[in-house]
Amino acid sequence: MNEKDLNTASLQLPEPTLRRLPWYLAYLSTLHNAAVEYISTTGIARALNVDPSQIAKDLSFLGIRGKTRIGYRVDELENTLRDFLGFDRRHNAIMVGAGSLGAALIADSGLQRYGLNIVAGIDINPAIVGTEISGVKIYDMAELPGIASRLDAHIGIIAVPVESAQDVADKLASAGIKAIWNFTPSRITVPDGVVIANTSIYSHLAVMYNRLASLNL
Amino acid sequence: MNEKDLNTASLQLPEPTLRRLPWYLAYLSTLHNAAVEYISTTGIARALNVDPSQIAKDLSFLGIRGKTRIGYRVDELENTLRDFLGFDRRHNAIMVGAGSLGAALIADSGLQRYGLNIVAGIDINPAIVGTEISGVKIYDMAELPGIASRLDAHIGIIAVPVESAQDVADKLASAGIKAIWNFTPSRITVPDGVVIANTSIYSHLAVMYNRLASLNL
Repeated sequence: MNEKDLNTASLQLPEPTLRRLPWYLAYLSTLHNAAVEYISTTGIARALNVDPSQIAKDLSFLGIRGKTRIGYRVDELENTLRDFLGFDRRHNAIMVGAGSLGAALIADSGLQRYGLNIVAGIDINPAIVGTEISGVKIYDMAELPGIASRLDAHIGIIAVPVESAQDVADKLASAGIKAIWNFTPSRITVPDGVVIANTSIYSHLAVMYNRLASLNL
Repeated sequence: MNEKDLNTASLQLPEPTLRRLPWYLAYLSTLHNAAVEYISTTGIARALNVDPSQIAKDLSFLGIRGKTRIGYRVDELENTLRDFLGFDRRHNAIMVGAGSLGAALIADSGLQRYGLNIVAGIDINPAIVGTEISGVKIYDMAELPGIASRLDAHIGIIAVPVESAQDVADKLASAGIKAIWNFTPSRITVPDGVVIANTSIYSHLAVMYNRLASLNL
């Protein structure tokens, strides 16, 4: 990790801010593609339905300021955001569970554009172990301990059946993994010093079905 | 929609509750597989790191009560939860964007186990249109208006490049789609009466990278 990271990305930002910054980045890329040169917080606010003062506050963490009445240079703000978020650096990750969802995530080149570099897959199914998915080799669970350090991976992604999630998380932590991205609906616990991110896509389905049912179609 | 739905699922629950219910369901399935017969809110709380009184409150929406000192019957609570969440019913959906992430989601059989039935894919790439992904036919964008009603789909999933997200959302709403699941980092707006669910997997990456950087590895 270089000095730049220590000055910027190593600053712990509030989670809501971190979640909003990629929205701004996505919008700036749209503007960039449309050859727009300047954008104000009010302009971003209108496009994204976020309070302008919230946007100004979020962007202040980046140490970048817009000019009065003109706003921010689109390309400059886009580059600063992408760099700050670490999307332009490679983060090596191991995918545990190369079944349906795991294989899908390995094949999703979108994740690579956001800096996530899946270097290995792990599975317990002998029919999958030894094969490759989108150029990523699938290893047996027993090989996990050595792989993380050998491939310099700090991130472990969990896409296994829910009942194995905690066991896999324990194994990843023992293997020296520092951040776990959990795609199972299980609330896993991790040792102190290990970062956990939960993406419960099925929770979003639950909310959507409930709201849809209340429409009484 | 039958009378049962009107009595249960049509009740609009608070979003945080709806997000937690699938966690409980996932844990109950684990217990079921392990042949456990009864579970208390304290037991669920310990396993999932959620406050026991919160769990009791969440479960009270289901109109199901545990017995003092024994708790809930695992299979009964599991079935009630699955039914209540609508995971045992089929919800027809159209996937717009059959590129990397879209194709991955079409192929993810996990979504089917949670009641999401992707009946068609839509893309603008002539190389993909007319092909099938995991048995799901991919149509041209121009065919969207007729497809939703013909295939009885009320849900539209958006997995297109960020700059097309709002345009696709508008087209889905015009085609009679009642709920939109947005996988792009764009904050799209929808007409009144259309349900929107955002799954920003890249936002989760931003949080994870930031926390990881602060560890100063």
